[in-house]
Order: sequence, then structure tokens, then C-alpha cells
Amino acid sequence: MLDKSIQIGIVGLGLIGGSIAKTLSKKGYKVYANDLDEKSLTNALIEKKIDGLLEDLDQNNPFILIFTIPVLSIDNELIKNKQLLSKALCVTDGLSVKDPLKIEIEDKKINTENFILSHPIAGSEKSGYLNSKENLFKDKIVVITELSDTSQSTKNICNDFWALLGAKTIQINSEHHDKYFAKTSHLPHLIAFALMSMISKSKETKKEIFTGGGLKDFTRIASSDPKMWEDIFISNQNNMLEVIKSFKSELDQLEKLIEESDSEELNKFITIAKKYRDSLV
Amino acid sequence: MLDKSIQIGIVGLGLIGGSIAKTLSKKGYKVYANDLDEKSLTNALIEKKIDGLLEDLDQNNPFILIFTIPVLSIDNELIKNKQLLSKALCVTDGLSVKDPLKIEIEDKKINTENFILSHPIAGSEKSGYLNSKENLFKDKIVVITELSDTSQSTKNICNDFWALLGAKTIQINSEHHDKYFAKTSHLPHLIAFALMSMISKSKETKKEIFTGGGLKDFTRIASSDPKMWEDIFISNQNNMLEVIKSFKSELDQLEKLIEESDSEELNKFITIAKKYRDSLV
Repeated sequence: MLDKSIQIGIVGLGLIGGSIAKTLSKKGYKVYANDLDEKSLTNALIEKKIDGLLEDLDQNNPFILIFTIPVLSIDNELIKNKQLLSKALCVTDGLSVKDPLKIEIEDKKINTENFILSHPIAGSEKSGYLNSKENLFKDKIVVITELSDTSQSTKNICNDFWALLGAKTIQINSEHHDKYFAKTSHLPHLIAFALMSMISKSKETKKEIFTGGGLKDFTRIASSDPKMWEDIFISNQNNMLEVIKSFKSELDQLEKLIEESDSEELNKFITIAKKYRDSLV
Repeated sequence: MLDKSIQIGIVGLGLIGGSIAKTLSKKGYKVYANDLDEKSLTNALIEKKIDGLLEDLDQNNPFILIFTIPVLSIDNELIKNKQLLSKALCVTDGLSVKDPLKIEIEDKKINTENFILSHPIAGSEKSGYLNSKENLFKDKIVVITELSDTSQSTKNICNDFWALLGAKTIQINSEHHDKYFAKTSHLPHLIAFALMSMISKSKETKKEIFTGGGLKDFTRIASSDPKMWEDIFISNQNNMLEVIKSFKSELDQLEKLIEESDSEELNKFITIAKKYRDSLV
């Protein structure tokens, strides 16, 4: 368990940062935060979900610092908060892409003994402080990625931090993380955006029948935050290009089978896909 | 309201046919059914969801006949049940593709005065009699397609039939129906199968993180019945090839923007897709 005297510093008070603030302030921890959006900050202060701005945090006493911002904003924020980085008990993040972040940190010659990366699998198509909530992380998985010099005590603190939020951690290296999520999360989002873009060009859409055919669930992720996903696609560029290529080759196969009215092979293809999906849940 | 003396004949006792049987037998209608699967028929008889086989239906008294089978089985079943077709008060179906069915019927020179097409938007990734249920159609939409000679009284009976099941009908012509569902239902299923096929080829999948990132909802439709979807893709061939082409062109655009790290255009693309999705629900 984390000592109650440990302060929590949050850079970025969106869905993830806001939910951390709401959960930990309730548990009696002192929480300090920054955000570009003054309204989120004011709301959090009024609602007593944070105890002050990041600058109010007492740097001479122990604190955990977490960056929960869009991937491509990290560069600036690391520079702006350089002093805090060196003094924190543990620094972590909530970003969806890890390899560019690892390179960024190592390029900046930041001491990474107290630095470890986190990716809470608790995202939603609903973004922002307004949608953040206590218990967002309950029973969720957080993927942890160590940096080259991450110390054992940093690992322990990070695990305790997420355990306090109700989540379970598993460990994956940064390269593997980015390849894995390109396939299972980033590509599905890209597909949902592509499909919605395509359907938006139709002359007519019957709203009442649109949502009946399973399309509501299927396209829910297309409601996600554009800035967040723009950053993820660009920062995970190589992996994205690779999975788009693989996916298009699957589409090409299906297209050919339909063109040739090849019922037998089409049935085989669908059956393999169905069986695999059924095995996962 | 349909008179209680009107018998209900169901060809195909799967999710749709079974749910009709369960709802209407409860309401006191006599229901008769056929299915290739003897187990479904036996279960339905034991559970008193049907009153007998289709051959037990009294052809000399009024009845409604409904075909709820995979699209490409309709040809055979129309021939097998030719006598019933001419005697029924109203003949309809529950198929997901309409234009080939319309051509099929008109080629067979079937009198279509008592024939009208129905597509209940109540499908699910869970198929078969086992998953059928009373009230499946409650508050659902049924898309109705008239044939060239469909009479007004047939239209009325068909509307009453679906109203009895709790659904609301809307009318679309067959060509438009197939184009519309190619885009909003058949393509999403194809995409889900393609994505699952692709991910199934990965060396490793972490089940515990797989379902956390929105992928569970996104790929639910990949659990759908292979035979049903094989038939839909092949019978809606031209529309499928067209929508696959359009969808690939959207993917190509996104691929190019990622390749060029064009944040601005990428953000624009995603924002349009998101706004469109948000406008639909």
C-alpha cells in the first residue's frame, strides 16, 4: 500500500488523469494537477477532486508524477516538468504508444531510475475530465513497460499505485507493446473512422435502421477523441503501416472469394475468424 | 390485429423463425414449422413452441407463410413449398438480401399478389433456435419490400403480422435495400471477419488485454453464423464489391496521411468520422 503522505501529481486532467484524481482524492491522498483546459482544473478544484495545481505540490516531500496527455504532447511536458522528474519517487504515464516515448526519454538523457511506463487499458470513446470517474480502473489491466534503468523500487511503487486504483499490472516491453496494440486497438479504431467516413458520404442514412444491425457497437470507438488518435497513429507510424497492409491483404482475399462466388473458401475464412473470436471471450 | 384462427407456417426454425414461433405460440396462434435440424424441431415440439410440422398445417384454412433461412437456400425451398405459396394469405421472409430474391421469385413466375418481402433488423451474432426468444422483435424495425404485384391486403397483413410481434415496419425498394445494407451491415461484418482472421495469425494474443480496449464490442459481430454470411456476401455480390472498393479507398487515404505524418489532415478525417458517428446515436 502507498503511504497516505505520498502526494500525487497529474499532468493532464482528462479521462485517465481525472479518474485517477477522483479515485485517489476519495481515498485521502493529496492530488495536484495541471491541464491546458482551465475549466477542467476549476471544476476539479471546486469538486475537491484535486488539492491544488501542480505548482502547489511540495517537491521536498515524496510524490508520484503521472503524465496523462496525448502522446505527441509528452515532449514539451517532459521539458516543462524537468525539475519534478528528478525529484519524484516514481514517474509514469498513461500513454497508448510506448516506443517513441522510451526513445524520447532516453534522448533527453533523463535519469530513468525512477521512471517506468504504464498503459491502463481503460480508455473509452468518451474522453475528457467530464467523463472521468472514480473506479474507472477497477479490475482493469495496466500494461507496464520498464525503461533501461528503472529500479526495482520504482517498479514496486508503480504496481502499488495501480493496485490502489483497483487495477492489475502485466509487463510487456515497449516494442512488443506497440506492435500488439497497433493490431488489437489502433487498427480497429482506424477501421471504425474509415467506415464512418465512407458511410458519411452516402446520400441517405436511415438513423432508425442504422443502429439495429450491430453497427452501434461496431462503430462506438469511432466516437473517440480525434487529437488522441491523430497522435497515436502518427507516433506508432511504422506499426500502423504494417497492420494496415496486413489488413488490406485480408480484405483482398475476401474480395476475391466474393468475386469468384467461392462459397466453400468463403465459409472456411469466416469459420476460422468466428472460431478465433469465440475463443477470446 | 390478426385473427387468432390464422395459422403460422415457418420454414427455418433458427434465431428469427424460432423467435417468431416462441412469441406467437405464447399469444395463442397455431404455429407449424420445418427445419433441416431435427433437434430444433423436436425441442420446439417438446417446449410447445410449435403445434406441428409444416405438413400438419391446414392448407384449407388461412395461414401466413414465412421463410427464415439462409439466403441461398431460398431457391430450393420455394420449389418444395410451391403449393403452400399459392394458398397462403400472405407469404414473406426474413432474409438480409432482397434483390436476388425478388429476381428468383419473378423468374419462377410465382404469383406475387400475396407475396411481400421482410427484413427484421433483429439479427445477432448468436444464431440458431437455441438463441431464439420471445420478444426478439419488440421495438425493432422491419424493412418491407413490395414485389411487382403485391396487393394492398397482403401489405396490411404483413404489417399486422410484424406489429403483433412488437415491431415497426418501414418500406424500402429491393435495390436500395441491398445497397444500403451492403454499406451499413454486410461490410462491417466482412471487416470484422477480416480483422479476426488477421489477428488470428499473430503468434501471441493476450486474452486479458484483448477485451479491454473496445475490441470486444468491435468484434462481436465476427461471432456470427458462417453459412448465413457466406450466403449474404455472395448473393449481394455486386454491392459488396462496390463497398469494399470504397472502404479500401478510405483506408488508402488514412495510410497516406500516416505515411506523411500529416497531423492536420488526419485530425480533419477523424473529426468528420467522429462527428458523423455522434450524429447517429
